[in-house]
Amino acid sequence: MLGPIVRRLGGRKVILASESPRRREILQHINFPFEVVPSKFEETLDKSQFPEPYLYAVENAKGKAWEVAKRIKDSEIVWRVVIGADTIVVRDGIIYEKPKTQEKAREMLRNLQGAAHTVVTGLVLIFQNDDQTLREVKCHETTHIEFSDLSDEIIESYVESNEPLDKAGAYGIQDLGGTLVKSITGDYYNVVGLPLNRLCTELLKNL
Amino acid sequence: MLGPIVRRLGGRKVILASESPRRREILQHINFPFEVVPSKFEETLDKSQFPEPYLYAVENAKGKAWEVAKRIKDSEIVWRVVIGADTIVVRDGIIYEKPKTQEKAREMLRNLQGAAHTVVTGLVLIFQNDDQTLREVKCHETTHIEFSDLSDEIIESYVESNEPLDKAGAYGIQDLGGTLVKSITGDYYNVVGLPLNRLCTELLKNL
Repeated sequence: MLGPIVRRLGGRKVILASESPRRREILQHINFPFEVVPSKFEETLDKSQFPEPYLYAVENAKGKAWEVAKRIKDSEIVWRVVIGADTIVVRDGIIYEKPKTQEKAREMLRNLQGAAHTVVTGLVLIFQNDDQTLREVKCHETTHIEFSDLSDEIIESYVESNEPLDKAGAYGIQDLGGTLVKSITGDYYNVVGLPLNRLCTELLKNL
Repeated sequence: MLGPIVRRLGGRKVILASESPRRREILQHINFPFEVVPSKFEETLDKSQFPEPYLYAVENAKGKAWEVAKRIKDSEIVWRVVIGADTIVVRDGIIYEKPKTQEKAREMLRNLQGAAHTVVTGLVLIFQNDDQTLREVKCHETTHIEFSDLSDEIIESYVESNEPLDKAGAYGIQDLGGTLVKSITGDYYNVVGLPLNRLCTELLKNL
């Protein structure tokens, strides 16, 4: 879908309001033309205030995208759209974020195995119209994940690799964690951190 | 699952009987210890002789694995297991292989969109036991794929990238083709060419 998107952009820029190396890699890998402007939005929302976990992810994505859009609105950057995204791992209504220690990682992996969990990305796009007004498009994408049965030996070996520490839910499907995942239902890239098909579909629809 | 597998291998080699750059990349990316010995098995099986498409993929995988296993059996290589794999794309019982021309790629993509198709990998492992006898383990892994609705503009732009030409089914989910895929059900790596979770699970079970 990249060719048609690039034609519709007509040289105006796509801004990714995220410092996540994984989101950047997904777009770079397919030669998507974009620039990174890291958001200064502080992710301090109170999770307990949201009736559904996906609303928390969308609100974070919204905060990130609008902070950047407002900041660059009157700058010299000729931009067309700002992308904000936030990815969370959810099981039984509980949001799993990045484990800070190996002990937390071990606990998360034990909790996540044995039943399905979901990965939800909130995606918010702010379009700058020709008359300089801004328009928001928001959505979320859900992917279901099923782990293999993980023995203590498998969990211990994975935790020792230190890969879990900076990953929501304590695993990275795009790296060693991919060996643990038996099956997914939904968009694979959503689990990595950016729902690529949904992003491209929304861009094509709105550009 | 890599740590436990490496421990059970105890230094004996894993041989990948495939020249596929994508299979190699999957294993290299997670630092899986393996060596490539390309199979000389000629893939000339008559597809029409197989009552189910997956049997064709398994038979190809078997041919690749055994050709290498027999060839290195009495060599100086200290090996434990040979991996043979063959990946096909199937819709309505029809096997889609690599399109040879842009016109064929266009036709395949038009046929595959609008309904689900499956990617099937036949996986055959030949283990060398301590008493030098050989033991075969065979299985197959299926992943269901749903494309977005693809307009002529999207198909044309993708075909022009030339990415489809060397890919079964005329797309690569790990590259630009990932933008076309709305949802998968199953193992993502199976679509790339090697069912990583299944491979690791069978290795752990049989080593």
